[in-house]
Amino acid sequence: MECDILVVGAGIMGVTTAYYLKKRDPSKKILIIDKYAGPGQGNSAKSEGGYRNMFTSDTNYLLADTSLDFFLHMQEEMGYDIKMDPIGYMWLFNEDQFTSLKGAIDHMINRGIEVVVYDRSEIEKMIPALVTDFGEDEEAEILGLKNIDYGVFGKKCGSLDADALVRAYEAEFIKLGGKVQYNTEVKRIHVKPEMELGIPGEPFVWQKKVITGVDTNKGEIKAGTTVIACGVWASELLDPIGLDSFMKPKKRQLFAFKDPKIEPVMKTIGLNSEGALPLTILPIAGILLKSELTEGSIWLGCADWIPRKFELEEDPQAEEDYYTNNVYHALVMYFPNFEDVRPMNSWAGQYAINSFDETPVIYKEEGLIYVGAGSGSGIMKGDALGRIAASLYFGEEEAELYGGQKFRVADLGVHHRKIEPEKFVI
Amino acid sequence: MECDILVVGAGIMGVTTAYYLKKRDPSKKILIIDKYAGPGQGNSAKSEGGYRNMFTSDTNYLLADTSLDFFLHMQEEMGYDIKMDPIGYMWLFNEDQFTSLKGAIDHMINRGIEVVVYDRSEIEKMIPALVTDFGEDEEAEILGLKNIDYGVFGKKCGSLDADALVRAYEAEFIKLGGKVQYNTEVKRIHVKPEMELGIPGEPFVWQKKVITGVDTNKGEIKAGTTVIACGVWASELLDPIGLDSFMKPKKRQLFAFKDPKIEPVMKTIGLNSEGALPLTILPIAGILLKSELTEGSIWLGCADWIPRKFELEEDPQAEEDYYTNNVYHALVMYFPNFEDVRPMNSWAGQYAINSFDETPVIYKEEGLIYVGAGSGSGIMKGDALGRIAASLYFGEEEAELYGGQKFRVADLGVHHRKIEPEKFVI
Repeated sequence: MECDILVVGAGIMGVTTAYYLKKRDPSKKILIIDKYAGPGQGNSAKSEGGYRNMFTSDTNYLLADTSLDFFLHMQEEMGYDIKMDPIGYMWLFNEDQFTSLKGAIDHMINRGIEVVVYDRSEIEKMIPALVTDFGEDEEAEILGLKNIDYGVFGKKCGSLDADALVRAYEAEFIKLGGKVQYNTEVKRIHVKPEMELGIPGEPFVWQKKVITGVDTNKGEIKAGTTVIACGVWASELLDPIGLDSFMKPKKRQLFAFKDPKIEPVMKTIGLNSEGALPLTILPIAGILLKSELTEGSIWLGCADWIPRKFELEEDPQAEEDYYTNNVYHALVMYFPNFEDVRPMNSWAGQYAINSFDETPVIYKEEGLIYVGAGSGSGIMKGDALGRIAASLYFGEEEAELYGGQKFRVADLGVHHRKIEPEKFVI
Repeated sequence: MECDILVVGAGIMGVTTAYYLKKRDPSKKILIIDKYAGPGQGNSAKSEGGYRNMFTSDTNYLLADTSLDFFLHMQEEMGYDIKMDPIGYMWLFNEDQFTSLKGAIDHMINRGIEVVVYDRSEIEKMIPALVTDFGEDEEAEILGLKNIDYGVFGKKCGSLDADALVRAYEAEFIKLGGKVQYNTEVKRIHVKPEMELGIPGEPFVWQKKVITGVDTNKGEIKAGTTVIACGVWASELLDPIGLDSFMKPKKRQLFAFKDPKIEPVMKTIGLNSEGALPLTILPIAGILLKSELTEGSIWLGCADWIPRKFELEEDPQAEEDYYTNNVYHALVMYFPNFEDVRPMNSWAGQYAINSFDETPVIYKEEGLIYVGAGSGSGIMKGDALGRIAASLYFGEEEAELYGGQKFRVADLGVHHRKIEPEKFVI
């Protein structure tokens, strides 16, 4: 089989990249392959589906903000039901945390990001089920819990259906004549000399090399350009040819709750039109909750830091103990309604974390384009990433993001990367 | 066992870090452990031993230049026979390569780096055995070889004995009362809650964590600070606790030649006081040769790029075919004296490559300091890296390098890293 561009991976980055490549040059023969049976089945569809434009790095802000605008356009004008629900993001902080982030918060506000700062008394009114002050509570002290002194609320933030989003891009790509082939697993990337001599041992060190496609479980696919957009699996393909994916996989678990006891937690006042719990981040351990309006449930996750290992798992699972004998201890102190409530469902996915700057990486190398290292916010930046990867393919220095904003392609690259520390990470 | 600072790895970065920590605070109980039977036995002693201050990134220049000054001081005033031999580095380029590097070369010269540019006729006189112009040669065209139009020669460059260098620092460390324990392999790094509760399941996500030492094949070692300086093995220890080493291991092979036929190759005119072949880099594939004066031989290496895999190998070996059926084809065209000459010896080591900027990484995280990602030039920067790691331990924003030059510690860190593209990489 032969094509102009082969995209390995039908997750968010693969489908957006393929879509913008095809849209910009419909004459190109573009094929997406994925080892799973459908789009987004690696980690995209396992995402908690939070979205936000609240980032302190200008790069992250631009990538997300313009992507969110396009997602809204898809929902409102292109007819895709991706369940974008602007319930907001509420980051809860104690005094010290807030002080250390004050400069970053001001930067976001000055940049025009819709961010509102609330004090404790306001938060108590808005989220009545939340305990904000542990007073002299001995257990809270033993657990090292932090009071809630401030809430930083982002308005252009909320929840979307990541699975539906990936399928929407796939559908648009197919509408343009793009091809998709599932259950097709890449075994290895082909590196060939640019000018083959037909001598055993090629490619030799002194030959100019080029990536010419891949071997799969269904045979060889030759491609003018091979796009590696397979998330946490990228190292499995890139390591054997000595290219870097700039990411390491880390498991993240999600737990869904539906119980009359936690109904008070789901009710808030004045934060969004549904009176629903925003995606709320507790001031400790990156514990986050969000209301999932379509199923009337609450989803809970936690930003695992050390000692949560970096490891590629084929089929990561939620751990039974992780909620009941770990997150729960702290959660129930902030939201006492969770007492004795057990998850009705749980699952796990993996983040592809670039620990340098928690920002995606896009580079080109001799017939290959890599799009990856989403670092947990790749879905909400997906539209911009697809446009940037397409610009890189077409040799442009700047990509045009949705809305007309320009973006320097090399800012996400390797050797001329723009490194900006991101202070708002979960 | 218990110590203030445990240094894992007795390679160049481990011994320099331990030495400067101990030198600055002799009261600290500092222990170096290594899984091998002596210092430098991982990859340091397998190095080709080239050193240079020719770097286009200011960071790399400062790290190397000041380290080389200290190495010279060790040799001339401290009595260590580390065989520093300023034979120079000669980078050979064709017209196009030279043109694209012209700005970087000017930058080095303006910065005060002793660099001389030679044209073809000068190079032909200086290195008589070298073929610089392939004319209409059909084989050269088929191989895609490049003519040599320019040579960029660095004077504060040459060859040293990496094994002796590591042993010198180890000896100084021991003189100060530092302890070293070999054949001691780390099994895992301990991550504990800062305040232990004695409940099963600790550390919980909501607890503040700290690294408290390691388990080894000889039992537990508790440490106030654990320094991870074990080169390509760092990921094996850091991945399981979810910290990043920012490097991937790649094999590099070296071949030693001693044959009357190549004696003409070893003779040069006007480049160094011995009339010896400088460390010479051919304009193709990063093939490098250097004269090894102590044994009257030539060492040859090659900068493997794609498709040389990233992979951790416990005991990497040189591949028989790699010289005879690969590098040789190009080498013999530039140096015909190599015809039918076979290596008398060969070995292999591994580079710990940080593909972002080919520059080392030093960071601190809750009781742990990481020093690594040498990217093939860690030895020649070793003195500065040890001083910077020590400054990080003592909480200083700036380190003082040998000669008094200041260096911002965060420049080698993660979130505030100073990224500068390096144009002179082998």
